[in-house]
Amino acid sequence: KMLRRVLCIVLLVGALPSLSEVSQGHISVVLLGATGDLAKKYLWQGLFQLYIDQVSSGHSFTFHGAAQTALEPGQRLMFDVLKKLACPPDESPNRCAVLKDQFLKLSQYHQLKTAENYTVLNREIETLLRQEGLKEAGRIFYFSVPPFAYTEIARHINSSCRPPPGAWLRVVLEKPFGHDLESAQQLAAELSSFFKEEEMYRVDHYLGKQAVAHILPFRDQNRQFLDPIWNRHHVERVEVVLKETVDAKGRTSFYEQYGVIRDVLQNHLTEALMFLTMELPASVSRTEEVLQCKLQAFQSLRGLEKNSAVLGQYQAYASQVQEELQKTQDYISTTPTFAGVLIHSDNLRWEGVPFLLTSGKALDERVGYVRVLFKNRAYCTQRETLRDAGHSQCKAKQIIFYIGHGPLNTPAVLVSRNLFRPVMPEDTWREVLGQSDLHIFGQPLSDYYVYSPVKERDAYSVLISNIYHGRKDFFITTKNLLASWAFWTPLLDSISHQPLRLYPGGVENQHLLDFEMVSGEVAFTLAEPVELLNPNRLMPSDYRTIQSKYRQNPLVSAWSEDLISQLASDIEKTASRTVAHTGQFHLALSGGSSPVVLFQRLARHHYAFPWKHTHIWLVDERCVPLTDIGSNFFSLHKHLLQSVRVPYFNVHPMPVHLNQRLCVEEDRGTELYAKEIMALVANASFDLVLLGVGTDGHTASLFPQSENGLEGAQTVVLTESPVKPHQRMSLSLPLINKAKQVFVLVLGKGKHDITTLLSRVGHEPRKWPVSGVSPSSGQLVWYMDYEALLG
Amino acid sequence: KMLRRVLCIVLLVGALPSLSEVSQGHISVVLLGATGDLAKKYLWQGLFQLYIDQVSSGHSFTFHGAAQTALEPGQRLMFDVLKKLACPPDESPNRCAVLKDQFLKLSQYHQLKTAENYTVLNREIETLLRQEGLKEAGRIFYFSVPPFAYTEIARHINSSCRPPPGAWLRVVLEKPFGHDLESAQQLAAELSSFFKEEEMYRVDHYLGKQAVAHILPFRDQNRQFLDPIWNRHHVERVEVVLKETVDAKGRTSFYEQYGVIRDVLQNHLTEALMFLTMELPASVSRTEEVLQCKLQAFQSLRGLEKNSAVLGQYQAYASQVQEELQKTQDYISTTPTFAGVLIHSDNLRWEGVPFLLTSGKALDERVGYVRVLFKNRAYCTQRETLRDAGHSQCKAKQIIFYIGHGPLNTPAVLVSRNLFRPVMPEDTWREVLGQSDLHIFGQPLSDYYVYSPVKERDAYSVLISNIYHGRKDFFITTKNLLASWAFWTPLLDSISHQPLRLYPGGVENQHLLDFEMVSGEVAFTLAEPVELLNPNRLMPSDYRTIQSKYRQNPLVSAWSEDLISQLASDIEKTASRTVAHTGQFHLALSGGSSPVVLFQRLARHHYAFPWKHTHIWLVDERCVPLTDIGSNFFSLHKHLLQSVRVPYFNVHPMPVHLNQRLCVEEDRGTELYAKEIMALVANASFDLVLLGVGTDGHTASLFPQSENGLEGAQTVVLTESPVKPHQRMSLSLPLINKAKQVFVLVLGKGKHDITTLLSRVGHEPRKWPVSGVSPSSGQLVWYMDYEALLG
Repeated sequence: KMLRRVLCIVLLVGALPSLSEVSQGHISVVLLGATGDLAKKYLWQGLFQLYIDQVSSGHSFTFHGAAQTALEPGQRLMFDVLKKLACPPDESPNRCAVLKDQFLKLSQYHQLKTAENYTVLNREIETLLRQEGLKEAGRIFYFSVPPFAYTEIARHINSSCRPPPGAWLRVVLEKPFGHDLESAQQLAAELSSFFKEEEMYRVDHYLGKQAVAHILPFRDQNRQFLDPIWNRHHVERVEVVLKETVDAKGRTSFYEQYGVIRDVLQNHLTEALMFLTMELPASVSRTEEVLQCKLQAFQSLRGLEKNSAVLGQYQAYASQVQEELQKTQDYISTTPTFAGVLIHSDNLRWEGVPFLLTSGKALDERVGYVRVLFKNRAYCTQRETLRDAGHSQCKAKQIIFYIGHGPLNTPAVLVSRNLFRPVMPEDTWREVLGQSDLHIFGQPLSDYYVYSPVKERDAYSVLISNIYHGRKDFFITTKNLLASWAFWTPLLDSISHQPLRLYPGGVENQHLLDFEMVSGEVAFTLAEPVELLNPNRLMPSDYRTIQSKYRQNPLVSAWSEDLISQLASDIEKTASRTVAHTGQFHLALSGGSSPVVLFQRLARHHYAFPWKHTHIWLVDERCVPLTDIGSNFFSLHKHLLQSVRVPYFNVHPMPVHLNQRLCVEEDRGTELYAKEIMALVANASFDLVLLGVGTDGHTASLFPQSENGLEGAQTVVLTESPVKPHQRMSLSLPLINKAKQVFVLVLGKGKHDITTLLSRVGHEPRKWPVSGVSPSSGQLVWYMDYEALLG
Repeated sequence: KMLRRVLCIVLLVGALPSLSEVSQGHISVVLLGATGDLAKKYLWQGLFQLYIDQVSSGHSFTFHGAAQTALEPGQRLMFDVLKKLACPPDESPNRCAVLKDQFLKLSQYHQLKTAENYTVLNREIETLLRQEGLKEAGRIFYFSVPPFAYTEIARHINSSCRPPPGAWLRVVLEKPFGHDLESAQQLAAELSSFFKEEEMYRVDHYLGKQAVAHILPFRDQNRQFLDPIWNRHHVERVEVVLKETVDAKGRTSFYEQYGVIRDVLQNHLTEALMFLTMELPASVSRTEEVLQCKLQAFQSLRGLEKNSAVLGQYQAYASQVQEELQKTQDYISTTPTFAGVLIHSDNLRWEGVPFLLTSGKALDERVGYVRVLFKNRAYCTQRETLRDAGHSQCKAKQIIFYIGHGPLNTPAVLVSRNLFRPVMPEDTWREVLGQSDLHIFGQPLSDYYVYSPVKERDAYSVLISNIYHGRKDFFITTKNLLASWAFWTPLLDSISHQPLRLYPGGVENQHLLDFEMVSGEVAFTLAEPVELLNPNRLMPSDYRTIQSKYRQNPLVSAWSEDLISQLASDIEKTASRTVAHTGQFHLALSGGSSPVVLFQRLARHHYAFPWKHTHIWLVDERCVPLTDIGSNFFSLHKHLLQSVRVPYFNVHPMPVHLNQRLCVEEDRGTELYAKEIMALVANASFDLVLLGVGTDGHTASLFPQSENGLEGAQTVVLTESPVKPHQRMSLSLPLINKAKQVFVLVLGKGKHDITTLLSRVGHEPRKWPVSGVSPSSGQLVWYMDYEALLG
């Protein structure tokens, strides 16, 4: 009855859904948490906007607010909100008043607490539709509730509120979607037991911000200009920034658990970055292709390390936490409120381009933007003051997606005039003309083509419209979510002990939070300003490397990541010194998992390494083809060799694969390798041999009780491993002991038992081959992380 | 007598050469061309300054002006100049007046025309010294004469004017020192028949400019700051610039033969660049080490190509030449009056850093500088307007050696304040303080530490002092000169047909001469402005590639360099297409000299080439070790593989070196390679085979009348070459003909006869193996340069 009445009114005022269009069916929107903050502030207004926009679309609507509050007070609370709904400025007041009246009539409140409540809601929807003779098109359930309530609500909806076959279900979820990869996986698994992937709409409201939502359309519509320049040859850097002036006061119970990376970087800024870096599908309106390309962009991100980030905390945060969370004065929060993170993509398009993600609270201004800065490749012959300002190729070239606030105080798209005049959709973006003294990103506003939205629209209203249209590319799919957490979780884990820079907040921060990129890492530009340190604050200092003795030889020990840094720079130092003396450096490397991080470190942080003069040898190899994923050489190639420039002739994989067969004695691979060593390495004495240790005390591929390689004249031997693949090739102990330097790398808790044992035993290579490592005229150094050393 | 009198006066006025110091000996300075322009303008003043500076050094001096003019008028002319000598501003007028009087008395004029004149001069010097009882320290002969006169004068000096044993001879030469490598070598050879290397002081007066002369001392004194940043990781670009407002009017007879590259870039700007890029010797005061390091810097320069330069000519130049050189109206000058050149060094320190050398006449301003711009690696969190200007790491960082003129109008050294406060020698450079509204290189002067010389000194006076001190590092040694010509001559040769951009001159040039770097090349930023073209001017258009047919197959033809560009991009296109379809690209490459330029082009200009998915095979190989300089693989590695990232597993050198021996049949290298091809290349059908043609019609290593490889089932064969090394390994013709595409590259006049012959014959592989290339289901394309095609 109610609906029919509404339709009549609609017909009268001329917003004309023809009756044939009505046949497209009915949509029920259920807003869970209908009286909460988010609902009050954005969601009801968004739903009203949806109704205004779609009233003539052929769909009919009902809106169901729901909460745990009882019917009568809940109803009152909800309608207090609804009555205050604003008319959009571009809507005629008359039409709007009528539509608002209709919207109120189409809305009702439900208490949803028990299973029965959900059954009742479902029955009411069914009854209504039957009475009105309407076909059901779909149902939207918008979860504006805390995450702990998700599972139960999801269960109820799944069991009681699914629409009949032929109609769709869309459930809309608000972050947080977990706290790290594991919790996100868990939550995703739970949800997927109730909903199909296509039914879930995870909101990241940044994807509804007009400037962010326009990144892909912009790239699509300006392909002709961007195709040649949207790559590492032209882009100098990308900045994705969200600065806030507010602090976390009043919200510390949430914030203390999350911090700036989980709150802003893992979701909002990363998503914006992906829109920028992903490959552009042939059609940006094909949701599936867009999602696929975005997922691929995640896959090519290079893993983050501790030094990929600089972190800060505003000074008042500690006392706010102590007060709000009733902590004692000596409680130390390690939650960052500021972060600057350097991200790289290994995609060929972006290799080497720094992506800087920055966000913080209590900063000097509120602003958000995505800024692409292009390289200056021009030389301008005419003197600066005599140049025609508009066209000089020597001015900075940038494209900025300005999310809002800041000096412009509106969403905008800016393109430097010396780049190109962009194609912009005239119905939604208009060029901003007229003079302004404003300087933005170092240049007067007049240096840019500037566009702002014809209608400024709130992110939630954009997103609600996209839920209605089923545009899943405006939302976070499960795969996308997990890819993002998989990317961020290692950093979050590794920075939990990281010291935070304290900052006073506001404009007084000055240069305290400026940071610099060096060799793929970031660091604050100013040295730690001692006067700002809270004297009560204990800075973790136990991650410094310590040096002592192990088995009568030098021992370097530290937390794993610092140990690897130290080892890598010790190897570089040895290499440079050796090349300076002899012109070449013979380095023999072991397989296994421990060296992988070392290889990556060498590849990414040691630009000055004399690779051109380095010979790479293998300490041991599995008898598998070199291109097999289990091959030591394959791993070495993947993690190191393919990223550096070692001449082809200087690379010496072990000849385990001869005559199309693996390690057959009569193919004499060991002899071949021995001859190669003899021919190239003076006295067969390697400059540096890198070894590891197995839990059984093996080193290289020399296992306890091995018949070959522990002694005797043979320099390269075939051995048998107790684990698959059994067949191995290995340098012999006598050959290893001829080396000028031997470094033994031991990482992880799993090695604690053997390191404890080894610290007590003598020279017993038949029992523990590594105990036989003792360079006759060289030096042995142990590199052991705290976990291996201390358990 | 005269000398003794002079010494008395000197003693009286208190510039005190003690008598014991006088024992250091006497120096005779002979200025040849004593009445010429350079002498008038700079040299006499420089000699006077030398006298003022060194009168108390313990040496005594006489100054001999010489010219072809007869004694009496010559004398008058010369003393007219000498009387006008100025006193330096920092000298007390009294002392200066006395010294000038002495200087005039110590100076005399000589006519030097015949051999006898030289003998007389020598006798006079000897007599004087004997009379005064002075020991001879040395003689300086300054050649301020046109280069055609050099040889004769040199011969006379060598035969008649050498000082006695124990005293040194220094001859000072003014440019031009040749016109290209060949003429420079010839001139150098002539001079070296008269003088020893250490006796010759070739002047490049830029090395006497105070800012240029201070580059090395600055680098030396600021090692602590520069060591970490003086490399490709920190330097974004280097600009070496000399802009002039004057044009060549009145000097076209000289200029038309030289042009801006020979006049300014080959010498002045290159020398300044070398001071900047050379490795710093342990001591910059050790002349030999400095010269050695500078020479090494030349060796690491990457060769220039046609597109390394943009060239221009001011519009009035043509008519000036026509008028001054009495040319007809249709005379076209190809002499550039403007050049911008992009230089790269392959030294690891500078790899990838662009060095831009720019100079021109009739520009908007007169200025000279060497500018090092550093990369911005910082992100500044605080909003621009709220940053503390002085210390922001986000401002540009630069070091500028300001040679002179321009807005500063003084030599200067500028260092951005956010870099470091430089160490400067206080006695010679002083900090410039005080406010200035001046903006320089995009920043207010207050952003820099600015230093200017305590005494501004003319370049010639600096150089004359260095001749006196025997500082050969301020001059151009023969090796240095020839290294520079060896570097520049290929560019000069290749641009002789290059079109020049016409420019109006002065500030009206606007953006016409701005240029950009793209993929290691430069091009003007603005498209050729049609309205400025002289309609009478014929632009060479014959360097476009033309397409037609050869032996019934497509033929691409062009001048060699354009042909190579075309071939390289055709290969890239094929590669990208193939990888897109099949995931990999199998490319078989030939040895020989023709492909070298292709390899270099692919390495340097094709950043988007899908190397990661490309397999590299050899078409043929010489039976030498792979590391032998004659190995095809070695050349391929050197010119291509070491610069790109082909995975190790995808590189397939031919196994010519097995079991420590070369191409022994029983080692079955051919079988091994055949098996590798079968295993990896689908149907043994390469995606692309690149071939060449020998003058005897051979291709790959398949020679006329070869017993192997022209037919039959064998896919890889051993063959015999008529030239050394005789033994070869080669793909067979039947295997080549299975390829999907075959490109045949033919370059040079030497191939004209065989291409003419081949155009007439049919399929006769036993006579001309290349005539048997005929892919059974693939495509054959001929790439032939005009010289090979047209002779």
